[in-house]
Amino acid sequence: MGKQEEWGFKENHELHAAAGFTIRNILESIIGNIDQKRSGKPMIHLGHGDPSIYPCFRTSVSVEDALVESIRSANFNCYPSGIGIDPARSALAEYLSKDLPYNITNDDVFLTAGANGIEVLLTVLARPGANILFPRPNYPIYEARARFSEIEVRHFDLLPDKGWEVDLDGVKALADKNTVGIVVINPGNPCGNVFTFDHMKKIAETARELGILVIADEVYAHLVFGEKPFVPMGVLGDMAPVLTLGSLSKRWIVPGWRFGWIAINDPTRILQQTGVVASIKSCLTISADPPTVIQGAIPSVIKNTPKSFFLNINKLLKEASDLFYEKVKEIPLVTCPHRPEGSMFAMVKLNMPAFEDVVDDTDFCMKMAKEESVVVLPGDVVGLKNWVRVSIGTEPKVLEDAIGRMKVFCLKHAKH
Amino acid sequence: MGKQEEWGFKENHELHAAAGFTIRNILESIIGNIDQKRSGKPMIHLGHGDPSIYPCFRTSVSVEDALVESIRSANFNCYPSGIGIDPARSALAEYLSKDLPYNITNDDVFLTAGANGIEVLLTVLARPGANILFPRPNYPIYEARARFSEIEVRHFDLLPDKGWEVDLDGVKALADKNTVGIVVINPGNPCGNVFTFDHMKKIAETARELGILVIADEVYAHLVFGEKPFVPMGVLGDMAPVLTLGSLSKRWIVPGWRFGWIAINDPTRILQQTGVVASIKSCLTISADPPTVIQGAIPSVIKNTPKSFFLNINKLLKEASDLFYEKVKEIPLVTCPHRPEGSMFAMVKLNMPAFEDVVDDTDFCMKMAKEESVVVLPGDVVGLKNWVRVSIGTEPKVLEDAIGRMKVFCLKHAKH
Repeated sequence: MGKQEEWGFKENHELHAAAGFTIRNILESIIGNIDQKRSGKPMIHLGHGDPSIYPCFRTSVSVEDALVESIRSANFNCYPSGIGIDPARSALAEYLSKDLPYNITNDDVFLTAGANGIEVLLTVLARPGANILFPRPNYPIYEARARFSEIEVRHFDLLPDKGWEVDLDGVKALADKNTVGIVVINPGNPCGNVFTFDHMKKIAETARELGILVIADEVYAHLVFGEKPFVPMGVLGDMAPVLTLGSLSKRWIVPGWRFGWIAINDPTRILQQTGVVASIKSCLTISADPPTVIQGAIPSVIKNTPKSFFLNINKLLKEASDLFYEKVKEIPLVTCPHRPEGSMFAMVKLNMPAFEDVVDDTDFCMKMAKEESVVVLPGDVVGLKNWVRVSIGTEPKVLEDAIGRMKVFCLKHAKH
Repeated sequence: MGKQEEWGFKENHELHAAAGFTIRNILESIIGNIDQKRSGKPMIHLGHGDPSIYPCFRTSVSVEDALVESIRSANFNCYPSGIGIDPARSALAEYLSKDLPYNITNDDVFLTAGANGIEVLLTVLARPGANILFPRPNYPIYEARARFSEIEVRHFDLLPDKGWEVDLDGVKALADKNTVGIVVINPGNPCGNVFTFDHMKKIAETARELGILVIADEVYAHLVFGEKPFVPMGVLGDMAPVLTLGSLSKRWIVPGWRFGWIAINDPTRILQQTGVVASIKSCLTISADPPTVIQGAIPSVIKNTPKSFFLNINKLLKEASDLFYEKVKEIPLVTCPHRPEGSMFAMVKLNMPAFEDVVDDTDFCMKMAKEESVVVLPGDVVGLKNWVRVSIGTEPKVLEDAIGRMKVFCLKHAKH
């Protein structure tokens, strides 16, 4: 019985294929390519939306206090319910209602373990023959989970020349009677854009016309620093039902807490009537929960985080955005078509034919990691070949250093 | 567009079916049946393995301190890697190696969000036509996740007359060339038994003979209070590869922290060679993670929890077990064939024909909740109709009160 072929279990290639879509796996290989002896410089990680390591982006002390109090109370060491504990859901319902023309209640909010909400919604909506509309570029975990959920994915474009707005004609052309929903990420990941209310209204009208729901990924809610305010998609929930994905990760700068939620923004109760809400509850019954001890901290996190904390984060991101957008203009061979105005990302286009010895975006990222110890994400991972996604969520000095290294790299590899 | 049938999304009945298997859903309906006005008594919840609400079962202050330090360091607010952060995996590898005849390393330990390890392993092992062997009775989340993973489940019996040992002849009769693994839960949930080393050796020999791996669910590891010591299945990993599921939940009494792990106990590296380890890593890449802030606490939790804490918990459980086993003998119409010696459960058989107006185990649980505000779990949920699973993880006085109420209930409903 020593030989492999005599064992009944096997490798699961389907899982490798799904994992292959993830930012995690790609960044791991890029970071693995760093050669600090060669560059003589410390790594600068602009590959993911996680500024938590920088002191200026440290979460509010009120957030830390809230979790400490939850622990010391010893009231939150017990199992949670599948949908989450009531005080946390109530606090979030009140928080989210402030930006809506109607109130949602604890019954409309379900707690999720980080980005698990994506898995939950795709699992709920999957059925033989069903399809779902994803943006291109997109946040890759949608692609990974959809592939694994066996729901057909159809991609509509986000238009760089129109500030990364949704190509609504494309959406209409893609949809058919088996289309269940459309995913809209605002503020944008990976594009760093923010939708206007008028554009969101057109998205909602299109969804209504097509008879589909909107998955509004608002993980970067309120992280806006341009001229457009953040408006939640739920504001338009009476036109088409909206399932909103939210998170503590970005606004409170605690991505490692893995705490998120699904909010039902559906004042006309279509999702109740069609059983979608019940299906979400069933899925949460058999899915991973956020720890009770973190759930116990939520009411205090929501109540006690000072406005000054949020204002400071947005101020930092605005400085970073302006710095990035101006400085990147000085780099030959790359273009950033749109100044970041939300989330913490910019999409940058590579002028591939002008490079001497860099063949594509992945090659660009691998070589820049090796030579300059700067990590950015190949656009291929988010669906745009020969672009890169750059996180601007870093200390300004570090960002400036990174842009300088990027310039050195481009100059070095430009055709003469 | 007001009518339901004009929308493209639908209810997901598959999810309802999977969720229907869970302890959570059943307990919710039993607790919903409590009528405290009628009973005039506070609820006693013996339905789940969660004693954390009782002051005598409060987790060690060292465990709380560990998490507080992790928060205050601000080093663990960032994203974790898919398999977990290295210090936590290393600390667990060292902890687990103490009970093994060989050492495992951080490369053999993967962190999971609570019972998510079950989902991960079933997802990894599922393939068209594959089957897996589950015990009957079983911990229900296996059934729920297997149903949803579309892997065929075959049940072997645990034998109450043999101290809930595995029916090995049954196992051999069930297995075929498409069998991938066998699940063994020790200390036993729901049966409260502990396997002898000799019996475990027979299980490993059987697995080797059949060419299958062992999923060793050791979530209740070290919670033993009878004559048999706890021996991890990994001790026999050289006979057949063992995937061990562990958790902070039970030994440290923090089920709400949702922190678990998968350990590879496979000194001959079969699981590496066959790609099963790589498949687990891929699955973890697209699965929910335990929060980094909790991962950051693990080295200190492992290092600093005093032995006295563990000894005290086992002493409390032994007292509860003895009390339960003796007192339950005084209750007519029920039998506990085996004194609990591990985990925190006892299986109790109902003498159904002797009841006047209670038709089955679910009816028993619903009526006892209504009349006596005592919650226990119908055996049907764990695969044994007309038994009930009782958690003994409560303060002794509370347990004694509950047994008294159970007696009142049985006397009241006995045939005359």
